[in-house]
Amino acid sequence: MGKPQVLVSEVGPRDGLQSIKRTMPTDAKRRWISALSAAGLREIEVGSFVPAKLLPQMADIGEVVAHALTIAGLHVAVLAPNLRGAQAAFETGAHKLTMPVSVTEAHSLANVRKTHLQMIDEVRAVVALRNARFPKVSIEAGLSVAFGCTIAGSVSDDETIRMALAMAECGVDEVGLSDTSGYAQPAQVRRLFKRLHAELGAKAGGAHFHNTRGQGLANVVAALDVGVTTFDASQGGIGGCPYAPGATGNIVTEDLVYLLEAMGVDTGIDVDKLVAARSILSEALPGEPIYGHVPDAGLPKGFTYADGRAPSAAQPAARTGVA
Amino acid sequence: MGKPQVLVSEVGPRDGLQSIKRTMPTDAKRRWISALSAAGLREIEVGSFVPAKLLPQMADIGEVVAHALTIAGLHVAVLAPNLRGAQAAFETGAHKLTMPVSVTEAHSLANVRKTHLQMIDEVRAVVALRNARFPKVSIEAGLSVAFGCTIAGSVSDDETIRMALAMAECGVDEVGLSDTSGYAQPAQVRRLFKRLHAELGAKAGGAHFHNTRGQGLANVVAALDVGVTTFDASQGGIGGCPYAPGATGNIVTEDLVYLLEAMGVDTGIDVDKLVAARSILSEALPGEPIYGHVPDAGLPKGFTYADGRAPSAAQPAARTGVA
Repeated sequence: MGKPQVLVSEVGPRDGLQSIKRTMPTDAKRRWISALSAAGLREIEVGSFVPAKLLPQMADIGEVVAHALTIAGLHVAVLAPNLRGAQAAFETGAHKLTMPVSVTEAHSLANVRKTHLQMIDEVRAVVALRNARFPKVSIEAGLSVAFGCTIAGSVSDDETIRMALAMAECGVDEVGLSDTSGYAQPAQVRRLFKRLHAELGAKAGGAHFHNTRGQGLANVVAALDVGVTTFDASQGGIGGCPYAPGATGNIVTEDLVYLLEAMGVDTGIDVDKLVAARSILSEALPGEPIYGHVPDAGLPKGFTYADGRAPSAAQPAARTGVA
Repeated sequence: MGKPQVLVSEVGPRDGLQSIKRTMPTDAKRRWISALSAAGLREIEVGSFVPAKLLPQMADIGEVVAHALTIAGLHVAVLAPNLRGAQAAFETGAHKLTMPVSVTEAHSLANVRKTHLQMIDEVRAVVALRNARFPKVSIEAGLSVAFGCTIAGSVSDDETIRMALAMAECGVDEVGLSDTSGYAQPAQVRRLFKRLHAELGAKAGGAHFHNTRGQGLANVVAALDVGVTTFDASQGGIGGCPYAPGATGNIVTEDLVYLLEAMGVDTGIDVDKLVAARSILSEALPGEPIYGHVPDAGLPKGFTYADGRAPSAAQPAARTGVA
């Protein structure tokens, strides 16, 4: 098997679990991460290094990273919003660190209680620590509200690109664009990623879309058009707002992988094994909404993966359909 | 107001209502169609001309068409699978008739109990009747399973285009492509509609996508890229399979209109008025699943329509979002 054409980076254990009130037991997190990896996911963001007082869901991050590091071939990613969290992350041996950096000052103050200038200093300090003591760890700046902001409203392309350039100057390895609250639309996605590539070259990172307004996969199609090769997603789209049923969190990994494979884009992932891993979620988080269409509908009759594989399991019976 | 750039054709009263077991009361259908039209929808497929024994949900089609024809400016579309239904449709004064024509012989036999040759004869007879007695009515052939078939499996581009050409030769005014069971993927959508335009010219019709595997809006983006300007959708995505929760029917009108307007494509439709019309659905069909993300999340802060309008209603309060 060669290298897949697109990297699907699973962020459910971080972005999904930190956005719901319930805490997943540590053992279930371990089994879930193992199952996701066994389905072919090669990168998993397994949690955040944040004070347990603020996010008790992430209090076991050390144990979770330790388990993930035992899985052969898995690229273990974590998130940390500041130097203290980053140092703790580096010391666990995680392979990749993402720092959330807001494009609008208003979101930065609300999310990390820092101005833009303070956050830029923080990222610079994290890069310096990495360079000095943990040179193998890669650092991504994930630009929050890169397509629009629930506090500030519209965000211009210039604002987003300006912050991307600032991050590149800080010495991060890549800069990804996050649609934190489901503001992105396909024309904007094409414009912004095209410009990100033009301005940052090899430091242009992946796309992190939420499905708040149901536009997630539409935005993926647009991003693919302009050469984006890394997409974040969460199993079952977990992480939606509990006050808005249907307003799911990240795009659903199962539906994303199906989209890519159906288009002939190799991901190296087995949809049926991925779907099977949902039972760990539903057992560990009873009553929590779990989204996704492909898990219900199954793979189409006659489906083959981009690399020529046939489905690994029998599919649900389909109705005929009228028109 | 000029002509919208894209025509969103609402098919909920036909494709949605015929795919669920419950029957919507005639008065609710009337109010629903009026509310959809008041939200800016300019074409609505209001029902099917089929034997009431087979589809009791459509037994009141005559009354429904009569009501729809009283709404100024509304293009009233109906579906009929055969000459008998078409004649009844013509006699009501409906403006447009769609005939469902399966690309695979297996689906044709299952859906309309006719071989390809028998169905081609039927369409030819309907066109002859229209030409002789109802020259103002337009006829569309809607090619079912144009992207894949739950019975026959994969469908080649050649099969679909061959049937499209056969329909053009029968004298229909346009040929649309239907993804009856959610088999379409964006690369295929681009290929097929590009070829449809090349082969049929002005007779190339619109896209009718189902959201069975969550790929509906992704396919819309692909179709827009190759010049498709008519999209079918159903309010609330009603019409999903009752045995597969989450496997919605058609793409959701609310989410489609938001996608287009956010991309700067004028539809002439007001999302808030559209969302308000959902209450008629939920009251008339209690317990029936109604889908859509935009109705829960609301329009983004700072949103303006493609023609510069501001939202017509206050939006739900949004959470801030983390990353």
